[in-house]
Amino acid sequence: MKITNKKGKQFRVPDATIRRLPLYLDKLILLQQAGVREVSSRQLAMSLDIKASQLRHDFHYFGGFSKPGRPYDVDQLVPALEEIIGVDNPVPFVVVGAGHLGQALCNYANFERQGFPLVGIFDNDPDLIGIKIRGIKIEPIENIATVIKKKNVRLAAITVPSLVAQETAVKLVDAGVRGIWNYTPVDLRLPKDIIVRNERLATGLMCLSFKTKRLEHPELISDD
Amino acid sequence: MKITNKKGKQFRVPDATIRRLPLYLDKLILLQQAGVREVSSRQLAMSLDIKASQLRHDFHYFGGFSKPGRPYDVDQLVPALEEIIGVDNPVPFVVVGAGHLGQALCNYANFERQGFPLVGIFDNDPDLIGIKIRGIKIEPIENIATVIKKKNVRLAAITVPSLVAQETAVKLVDAGVRGIWNYTPVDLRLPKDIIVRNERLATGLMCLSFKTKRLEHPELISDD
Repeated sequence: MKITNKKGKQFRVPDATIRRLPLYLDKLILLQQAGVREVSSRQLAMSLDIKASQLRHDFHYFGGFSKPGRPYDVDQLVPALEEIIGVDNPVPFVVVGAGHLGQALCNYANFERQGFPLVGIFDNDPDLIGIKIRGIKIEPIENIATVIKKKNVRLAAITVPSLVAQETAVKLVDAGVRGIWNYTPVDLRLPKDIIVRNERLATGLMCLSFKTKRLEHPELISDD
Repeated sequence: MKITNKKGKQFRVPDATIRRLPLYLDKLILLQQAGVREVSSRQLAMSLDIKASQLRHDFHYFGGFSKPGRPYDVDQLVPALEEIIGVDNPVPFVVVGAGHLGQALCNYANFERQGFPLVGIFDNDPDLIGIKIRGIKIEPIENIATVIKKKNVRLAAITVPSLVAQETAVKLVDAGVRGIWNYTPVDLRLPKDIIVRNERLATGLMCLSFKTKRLEHPELISDD
């Protein structure tokens, strides 16, 4: 994705960098809560199991955040990253599909703490409609457009059955959603200006499997 | 992570590549199920929203899988990737913590289909113990070691409360688990030969937020 910095210069920011920004912010907030004021790129990178050069390279896209050889000021870096990521103001989101996964997402307190208040939950199961999760009532799917428009929602997670994933996504987009967090295995067909993030749960197990296999078979691996 | 290929040559495989392997496999299995026999790097890359050069670069670590200019043979590439990822044989896993998220993971049928049969679920809540999910009874945490050893389990997901995350992880590792899929926000302190994958749910929303913000503010973005 190409972005323009404050000096008007254009950069192409790799997706891998974008994916690491929240991890940096996550860790920095923990450090801030622990009272840590300064952190070096080496310390921060080590705690995330990446190389310091990689971290500095990522930060460089956004101006670098510190003078060469100087540590980062945690209290300055946190709001700077929040602004870059777009969570300097609360970003409301909704969850469509209130099965186990949907309810798990709704119950995840960290979203709120990290700037994403949950403002709507939708499902078509009459047994679920009306139940409150974290103070929010599960509403029928037909209410989506009203809630999205009223609360100016831009982000939605979908955890519905595969069969209705596409129509659910279209409904959300028509109502004004611009980013979809897709927990279904379906490849959504949506306009190009809609951002879709496909969350494939099995990916996590596969990465673990790849790495543990190589640790258990020394003939396949040689450590640094 | 450094790995050795079949010719005895050592490569350092970037983590980003390792994370993409399951996505390739995922997509290729879908193509295979749809009856597709051949796919070019361009087609496969496009369907995953990455560059063809990136995909070829990733595959190059493992021998490339096709002659230059030739498409990939889907029926050959699927088992090759399965072997590399380590899912050519079923890899049993357990889930510790049977709250919403734990139950969502247990109910996720795709794990089984992708080579990860669930063989144990553990929780300490007396209201949950004994309940069956996908045919597996929720057992008390104290049974972990017995099940792990009996079923030769190497991978475990933990979705327990933060306060007991560290002790749960230690219990799993002591019993023989080598890879931990950590859904708690806790930084686990474990021996170096244990692979931990921290799943930070909010990361997904943050990436979406970053990208939709830039799409909605044209002054911050210029498309290719």
